[in-house]
Amino acid sequence: METFKAHLDKFITINDEEFASIISFFQVLKVKKKENLMLEGDVCKFKYFVLEGCLRKFFINEKGVEQTTEFAIETWWMSDTFAFEKQMKSSFNIQSVENSRILAIDYQSQELLLEKHPVMERYFRMVYQTAYAAAEKRIRYIYEMTKEEYYVHFSTLYPWFIQRIPQYLIASFLGFTPEYLSEIRAKLRS
Amino acid sequence: METFKAHLDKFITINDEEFASIISFFQVLKVKKKENLMLEGDVCKFKYFVLEGCLRKFFINEKGVEQTTEFAIETWWMSDTFAFEKQMKSSFNIQSVENSRILAIDYQSQELLLEKHPVMERYFRMVYQTAYAAAEKRIRYIYEMTKEEYYVHFSTLYPWFIQRIPQYLIASFLGFTPEYLSEIRAKLRS
Repeated sequence: METFKAHLDKFITINDEEFASIISFFQVLKVKKKENLMLEGDVCKFKYFVLEGCLRKFFINEKGVEQTTEFAIETWWMSDTFAFEKQMKSSFNIQSVENSRILAIDYQSQELLLEKHPVMERYFRMVYQTAYAAAEKRIRYIYEMTKEEYYVHFSTLYPWFIQRIPQYLIASFLGFTPEYLSEIRAKLRS
Repeated sequence: METFKAHLDKFITINDEEFASIISFFQVLKVKKKENLMLEGDVCKFKYFVLEGCLRKFFINEKGVEQTTEFAIETWWMSDTFAFEKQMKSSFNIQSVENSRILAIDYQSQELLLEKHPVMERYFRMVYQTAYAAAEKRIRYIYEMTKEEYYVHFSTLYPWFIQRIPQYLIASFLGFTPEYLSEIRAKLRS
């Protein structure tokens, strides 16, 4: 739980008593590698915060292939934001990439949390602002770079990330076949 | 200013006195069509809210061509979120598409506003949350659809938008040449 407290401390000022109250709105989940947290067609009940481990979001494309669109590691949030806020069915799947320990909050609990601790509005404002800023950057990269260039950029900026995530998932994220990703990696090494 | 009040009323509850105080943190700008609000290399000083008119965000790609990545019409916000929050130089341009009336807030004023009116944390949390949800959808579309399919999807969902924005800017947003967009439109009509 210290992970979450340390994370909150970066954005807002809360004392131990407030933190104890805040954390009571969350459930702690332990999930095994490749366990499903949400399936396409499910109502998006939860927003997840990664304490330890890694999650991914994906959909099944028209060829029947899993297309990963997002990863979340320690201190990152993951949900289908639109479906969560509207409490609608999601068209995404969320699955653990590694054995993970996560916090989950449902919509009703989030509303009660925000009512009781308005300081969490500030926290979530900053979280969504940062997420949106990252999405703006990502959209620009999509316009600006080929997928090969994006991979090079990504693996230069976040080498530890590339090391950590299984290659076939990196390929799925980039829309490559695993074979094509191996080719690019071989080319980069040479 | 009623546009902004009506917009805020959708998210938060404030009285006239509070609104008068909130609005005092903003400047009202009138800009002519094609006027630049921010140039690439400028520190991103402002966040803009469109009262009337339309703005676009673009960068100059390596071929020297303007690549539009975003539009903002009435009640939408526009900025380079990352550069604004860090008060850094932006690598985007913001320009008016039509004669527009907009609200602008600088970083310092935003901080003072949030301090004096914490309810605005809730408002901006919801704004960024919605913006992020839209970006998540957009990123999925990019994975899932060809640009032609995206155009059809876009023009079916938002025909009034396609009517309103000059064709060469729609082409720039989609990464098409204006000629190619004309071809697709002709094909769709036939």
